[in-house]
Amino acid sequence: MTVSVSGGSKKYSVSIIGASGYSGAELTRVLLRHPNVELQALYAFSQAGKPASELYPALSTGMVYQNYGGETESDIYFLALPHGEALALVPELLKAGKMVIDLSGDFRLKNPDEHAAFYKQSKSADAVMTYGAPELFRQEITASRSISNPGCFATSITLGLAPLFLAQEGARVVTAVNCTSVSGISGAGRSSKIELSFSEMSENVRAYKVGEHQHTPEILQALGSSATSPSFDFTFTPMIGALVRGIYTILNVRLEEPVKIDELKQLYKSFYGNAPFVRLRDSMTEVRHVAHTNFCDIHIAHAADQGSVVIVTALDNLLKGAAGQAVQNMNIMLGLDESTALL
Amino acid sequence: MTVSVSGGSKKYSVSIIGASGYSGAELTRVLLRHPNVELQALYAFSQAGKPASELYPALSTGMVYQNYGGETESDIYFLALPHGEALALVPELLKAGKMVIDLSGDFRLKNPDEHAAFYKQSKSADAVMTYGAPELFRQEITASRSISNPGCFATSITLGLAPLFLAQEGARVVTAVNCTSVSGISGAGRSSKIELSFSEMSENVRAYKVGEHQHTPEILQALGSSATSPSFDFTFTPMIGALVRGIYTILNVRLEEPVKIDELKQLYKSFYGNAPFVRLRDSMTEVRHVAHTNFCDIHIAHAADQGSVVIVTALDNLLKGAAGQAVQNMNIMLGLDESTALL
Amino acid sequence: MTVSVSGGSKKYSVSIIGASGYSGAELTRVLLRHPNVELQALYAFSQAGKPASELYPALSTGMVYQNYGGETESDIYFLALPHGEALALVPELLKAGKMVIDLSGDFRLKNPDEHAAFYKQSKSADAVMTYGAPELFRQEITASRSISNPGCFATSITLGLAPLFLAQEGARVVTAVNCTSVSGISGAGRSSKIELSFSEMSENVRAYKVGEHQHTPEILQALGSSATSPSFDFTFTPMIGALVRGIYTILNVRLEEPVKIDELKQLYKSFYGNAPFVRLRDSMTEVRHVAHTNFCDIHIAHAADQGSVVIVTALDNLLKGAAGQAVQNMNIMLGLDESTALL
Amino acid sequence: MTVSVSGGSKKYSVSIIGASGYSGAELTRVLLRHPNVELQALYAFSQAGKPASELYPALSTGMVYQNYGGETESDIYFLALPHGEALALVPELLKAGKMVIDLSGDFRLKNPDEHAAFYKQSKSADAVMTYGAPELFRQEITASRSISNPGCFATSITLGLAPLFLAQEGARVVTAVNCTSVSGISGAGRSSKIELSFSEMSENVRAYKVGEHQHTPEILQALGSSATSPSFDFTFTPMIGALVRGIYTILNVRLEEPVKIDELKQLYKSFYGNAPFVRLRDSMTEVRHVAHTNFCDIHIAHAADQGSVVIVTALDNLLKGAAGQAVQNMNIMLGLDESTALL
Repeated sequence: MTVSVSGGSKKYSVSIIGASGYSGAELTRVLLRHPNVELQALYAFSQAGKPASELYPALSTGMVYQNYGGETESDIYFLALPHGEALALVPELLKAGKMVIDLSGDFRLKNPDEHAAFYKQSKSADAVMTYGAPELFRQEITASRSISNPGCFATSITLGLAPLFLAQEGARVVTAVNCTSVSGISGAGRSSKIELSFSEMSENVRAYKVGEHQHTPEILQALGSSATSPSFDFTFTPMIGALVRGIYTILNVRLEEPVKIDELKQLYKSFYGNAPFVRLRDSMTEVRHVAHTNFCDIHIAHAADQGSVVIVTALDNLLKGAAGQAVQNMNIMLGLDESTALL
Repeated sequence: MTVSVSGGSKKYSVSIIGASGYSGAELTRVLLRHPNVELQALYAFSQAGKPASELYPALSTGMVYQNYGGETESDIYFLALPHGEALALVPELLKAGKMVIDLSGDFRLKNPDEHAAFYKQSKSADAVMTYGAPELFRQEITASRSISNPGCFATSITLGLAPLFLAQEGARVVTAVNCTSVSGISGAGRSSKIELSFSEMSENVRAYKVGEHQHTPEILQALGSSATSPSFDFTFTPMIGALVRGIYTILNVRLEEPVKIDELKQLYKSFYGNAPFVRLRDSMTEVRHVAHTNFCDIHIAHAADQGSVVIVTALDNLLKGAAGQAVQNMNIMLGLDESTALL
Repeated sequence: MTVSVSGGSKKYSVSIIGASGYSGAELTRVLLRHPNVELQALYAFSQAGKPASELYPALSTGMVYQNYGGETESDIYFLALPHGEALALVPELLKAGKMVIDLSGDFRLKNPDEHAAFYKQSKSADAVMTYGAPELFRQEITASRSISNPGCFATSITLGLAPLFLAQEGARVVTAVNCTSVSGISGAGRSSKIELSFSEMSENVRAYKVGEHQHTPEILQALGSSATSPSFDFTFTPMIGALVRGIYTILNVRLEEPVKIDELKQLYKSFYGNAPFVRLRDSMTEVRHVAHTNFCDIHIAHAADQGSVVIVTALDNLLKGAAGQAVQNMNIMLGLDESTALL
Repeated sequence: MTVSVSGGSKKYSVSIIGASGYSGAELTRVLLRHPNVELQALYAFSQAGKPASELYPALSTGMVYQNYGGETESDIYFLALPHGEALALVPELLKAGKMVIDLSGDFRLKNPDEHAAFYKQSKSADAVMTYGAPELFRQEITASRSISNPGCFATSITLGLAPLFLAQEGARVVTAVNCTSVSGISGAGRSSKIELSFSEMSENVRAYKVGEHQHTPEILQALGSSATSPSFDFTFTPMIGALVRGIYTILNVRLEEPVKIDELKQLYKSFYGNAPFVRLRDSMTEVRHVAHTNFCDIHIAHAADQGSVVIVTALDNLLKGAAGQAVQNMNIMLGLDESTALL
């Protein structure tokens, strides 16, 4: 049901399933501003009947959340559901010929054993969509009609490491990576847990799921490595801190051979040459540089003689880490300017 | 069961019923440091069996939360329960000859109709304890064995207004008071509501219960006025802001006759002459001046020709607004230095 | 120097003088997205030579701050300078035939004595521009080429009170107004004062300039009252709290005669009928409802029998309180849709 | 000038030089409560003449800041000065027979070349005091009269690693350590820098001095390793986040041989057996567990087969990371209970 508008330019009709969470609300905000789409329906099971502007008064829309009952009237469906809930929906939408972008973890891992181990849920081996990391797999995305949108931590880590692993020229042999990330609390979703209350989290920092986070296999897969027996030592320690939005990642990388910081910068510059949303920064980056934007900033902070490198990345978990990257993927699939509605 | 300790000095045994909330935890912290008491039991229904240090690791104690089953072994009982739950317990403890300090609203209002209107719950007309505002009713407290501890907003407002109403010499005719208060979010208790989550409250301010807050009749009663037909126009607008602890109150007072700011300062100084925890400040006060202390700061900010006065007060809602004031009341009842364990 | 772009639609060239402060940066962000303007120069004395994206990396622009040396090449000039610095510049720009929007307080007050009293600086009696409150003076703005943009506190208070004073039908006799406002700290500008540091302001609230704030006469003037002898008792107590953006205002209003809350809502609805950026809300508003938007939310919270009314307003101090309202004024002057680039 | 008090118990007289910074204020607060000391003078050059309670109204004291002019009347001197300023003062105080505890970095490094490299300042090779890490060097401290108090980051890292390096039985061969720490902003001192303002740091995280922080050689020295040619690869990435107090450290440790997590826990337990302020926690620790306390919490979060271990530590930078540890050192030197005034 592509919408025609006066003047002749076509608009795609778009719906969001799972529109009432933080990622869904951010998707709503971005798509309302998008010149090439018409937002058709906001589905949100638990909030059906409520105006979106009641939950998110900053949203300028009169749209009301609805129950999703299998509708397929839109051209494009974004799914922003809790993990597990997209597994059944996506095949139906694809069967109906729809373009689908799923923000959950349900379709990210190619290996069903890894999925079972990290998501505590089995899935069939063909439950895999194109992994929507535009800076790594732009060609696949261009050719695809179904995208599994990367995780927020995974994006912040993968983009900081990709040139070392995936550059056609200049890739390095990595022997170890220790990742530590501070995430904004919105990453835990719109949640009523005591441990996410203001009284517990103001002035606080807390690590969790050390060595067990479900983004671990996704990162290794994106870097071309096996998750079960990676070719290098990999540790990931996620933290939440006293902020709502943003992911700030410190990557401690050990290379087989020493490297000069300028060579690294050149490697990254050449790898990300055409990417509008990855910014290589000569000075230190901060969360506030990227909050409320779709940018991922990368700063190569330190390279010591022994082959030890420190790389810092920053992004907004709800935009480049979720809704922004999802729209970026849609733009690429539709052949639009990749940055439409995202600057 | 008064404890004797080596060296001859006596220690009172104390228990807390409702010890696992924020006020209960603050009581625990203060009483653990109190040289004249021995903390005997921490009762907390929902947390029974858990060490207190699991919920509040900053507490240095090996005590474990227990179910309360009617025990009366301690000399003194503090109750820090949700509103309504102390109504039945207090009479039993008094019957057993215990000293009781209740931090809830159950026993604050003398008028059962006001209680019914603001707490949505009926109670008998004799369910009244001594109102534990030490700076206003020190003599009554000294003579009492059962205290109803004032509300946090009520304390911040009553202390800012009392000299105008209660001073034996110099009291003024007040025609109107508009109170607006910003409270820390801990005032809502240890709670898992979405609207108190970090993601919703960081960078936020929100008013609530405008004109309906249950501290309204308590304030008027403490000032010697009827709540149902007060002698002056009274409005109270509570807000919560992006802070954990503290209440900051702006009192807009209209007097029948103009007053000079220096006269007011003199009036307040003389009224609070002996109070160790009320500080009259010549310059503006702030929440951070009183956070983690038992002080209530008062600054008379402005007095205009027309009889309009602005008074600012600040206190820590968990200390002077709850646990600290409760211990202050205990100290007075026991004949100890009023500030023991509170400086 | 109106810019012609391919396709025939005209773009106005715009420059910002004082572009490196928070309001200047927000202006830059909004104008970069504005389809009808071309941002020509960013002037910022202290930062000349630095790329704007160095100070504000979230800004997607390669523009570099320049020294302002009297250039008049743009069609429209926004001034976002410290108070006092626009007094000499504006007449020069107007003489050169430019459209000017000044965000400072320099041209807000018609009465030079009031200006002298509150801004500690003399100015000539004709240093007055059209007061840019679109919801109050849309016609004057449409006809004007030079705008003095309202103050942030003033906007939050004036919009909350205007229908009571300025409605052609239904205006009420107001006898007293007590305003208390909590402002985000960005309202103090990009500043290095210790008392605005994170360590001093986290978990803090502080009132200041009680009864002396320079927005006081501006509010009274906008409401049609004399500032030196207003027809009603007026007090304004500004506070800063632990948030960056937003102003939250509680208005305690006393009317000569009691009023029903529904009548008031009707009065406000009819007064703001056509205003795209004022939202009358039936439920409580919060800062997070308006942060990062150009909306001013108004909620009539309480009306008691005695003629006492509580009105709550919320806006983003950098948008509706500064840069957003400035662009809204520009849109009106240019005959564009009032909300262009602001939704 | 040891003070005798009634009852016969002796009090030591104590003065603080550099009392007006955050560490100085925290020292003041703790020493005012200390039963064995009498606070004699608060020296603070820039604030001389001001009451301490003007800068820190939460402090309950009438003491006034003074200029330090070489006085030596107290028994014990704490120095909490900017780096560099203690170098000349300490020898004078020691010559006068005083007990000295210096909180700066001036006397921490034994190697003057390392001091020159990291503090950009030369010092003589004998400008070394006993390094006051009580859990590592209790015997030396007991025998000492002059203490160089450890840095805040250094404490959080050294305590998390010490058993691996210093345990007499069970120490391991460490091949690499990557430290990332999030610090509260008070660690930067009472400062008026724009980049530490609330408007810039709320909702922000920022790394700095990656690989160059001056605590690096101090950590290596405390662990018995050379800083210039350490026996293992060491990287330290400090960050500041949106909190005032606290340091939260993630230690990624690589061991030459795999280790079981239970063995590690046993090793740490036995190493810290008698330490009242180090708590080994079985579940994850958080900043809020230790804020406003002198505890350092350690949680061994993860140990993988390959010899990769993740250790998490948390402490309050102003207490265990500065003033609290300084008083702990004093208690040990004086033969008092180590935890006096610190629980």
